[in-house]
Order: sequence, then structure tokens, then C-alpha cells
Amino acid sequence: MQNHKKFIDYVVALAEKNVKKGIGGPFAAAIVKNGRIISCGYNGVTSKNDPTLHAEIDAIRKAAKKLETFDLRGCVIYASCQPCPMCFSAVYWANIKKIYYAASKENAAEYGFRDEKIYKELKTKITSVKMINIKDKNYLNPFKVWNLKEDKIKY
Amino acid sequence: MQNHKKFIDYVVALAEKNVKKGIGGPFAAAIVKNGRIISCGYNGVTSKNDPTLHAEIDAIRKAAKKLETFDLRGCVIYASCQPCPMCFSAVYWANIKKIYYAASKENAAEYGFRDEKIYKELKTKITSVKMINIKDKNYLNPFKVWNLKEDKIKY
Repeated sequence: MQNHKKFIDYVVALAEKNVKKGIGGPFAAAIVKNGRIISCGYNGVTSKNDPTLHAEIDAIRKAAKKLETFDLRGCVIYASCQPCPMCFSAVYWANIKKIYYAASKENAAEYGFRDEKIYKELKTKITSVKMINIKDKNYLNPFKVWNLKEDKIKY
Repeated sequence: MQNHKKFIDYVVALAEKNVKKGIGGPFAAAIVKNGRIISCGYNGVTSKNDPTLHAEIDAIRKAAKKLETFDLRGCVIYASCQPCPMCFSAVYWANIKKIYYAASKENAAEYGFRDEKIYKELKTKITSVKMINIKDKNYLNPFKVWNLKEDKIKY
């Protein structure tokens, strides 16, 4: 638990610095493997003009680049705040199995962030983002070609 | 509907090409504003060593960069396949209100992709990714500093 506290302290301090420096929202994260920090991530949505640049996404991208793999199995992630559904799913795709976080999505909501709202919308069929299905005659072709591809790399 | 079909045809063809070229999974997307394509995105998870590099994330990042804003209000997204929860949430954060898609998450599941599984996990409290809450004494500081920051840019 001591080690977890240390990394949580660290990312919480980074998140505070991120706001003070005007880089973006109050969020930071770190990817850790075998007790060592592989990468740190910061929210840079507004300064980098990238709505996907959340701390966890940033940390995952940097760790994957550094370790030269899209598969971060064996890594864990520390986040100053509970990941939003985008970041939770990114963790999932990266094969990271444990997320340690400090503030909750309810805390984030209190300060005006929509994380909790998206979590709620993902549990219903009625969302503020409309998903409209339009099939053309070829819509399964990409998957069929994928299926036949002998040298495909699964992820 | 004719226009929607045209863009769907286009991204489905891009997704097929993406597999043939060995760039990544069978997915492509395009951001459209006022009937014009702003950006195209491709799945590049395996070739770029980036587990977050899904087609929609790629398209959103490129569009935001091109339009020099993190707010893609007024844009719509066309995707060769129903976005996974990571990409759905990215669309949400980008303030895009409509997603047109061809193949479904059930189709993706049939071909070995985990999109549907993540959707299911987000509806339960028991997930294969563990979220562990560890609070230090400063855990709300980033939000408090954010709250007090007069020149903050909300997103």
C-alpha cells in the first residue's frame, strides 16, 4: 500500500502542476511496470487542441511507444482521478489490468467534468450522441478481408 | 440518405484498404462538416504501437488539429463500424452529436474484436479491469486549483 500511496501522491502533484502551467484540466497519470515509472501523462485537451488528450491516453501512448508494443500487459496505471469511459476503455485495449486512482468520477462531476455523465449514458440506450446505422452492400468486406489475411496481427 | 450512403461507402472502402496495406484492424472513419470531409482516420494499433489508435480517435485528432480547436461541434462522424466505448466517449468529448456507422459491434465481435465485451463491462460493477481507489491527503488539490484558476479554458 505504501508504494501505491507514493505513486498516487506523485500523479496528484503532477495534476496540480498541469493546471498551474495552463496545459489542460486537473488530471495526470503514470504507467508503472515492476515498480518503475514507464511514462507520465497529462491532460492537454485545450492547449494541444486534442479532445482525446486525456492523461491516461497520453500515458498509454507514451508507454507503448517506449516499450515498442501495443500490448501493455504487466503494467498498471496510476491516475489522479478515476478514468472516464474513454480512458477506461483505452486501459482495457492496452491489456492493463489494474487502475489505481485518487479522486472519483463524482468528484470530477462536482468540478464540472462530464465523466460521470458519459458513464451513465453508456448504461442506457438513449444517449445525447446519436448512433445511426447505415449499411452499404460492402459493409462486411473489411472484416472478410481481415479474416482471410494470413499475416494479420491480432490485438 | 444518399449522402450518408456515399460517406459510409467511402469509409468502408478505406477500412478494407487499411487491412490490405497491413496498417491495422479493419476500421476507418471520417469527420465531415457541412458535407465536406475534414479528416480520415485509420486503425493503426499494431503498426504504430498505439493501443489508442482507433480510426475514430485518429480522425478526431486530425480534424481538431486541422480546425485548430478541441471542440468539433457541428461535425459528424462516419465510421465503418460502430465505435467502441473508447471512441464513443471520444466523440462525446469532442462534442460531435451524430455517429453514422456501417457494421455493428456484434459484427466486430464475430470477427474477434472486444468492443461489445467492453460495452457489457461498462454496464456492470464487475469488470476484468480492476479500479482501486487510493486517496492521499491532497487528492482534491488539482480540482481546487482548477476551480480558482481565473483564465482556465473549460472543455
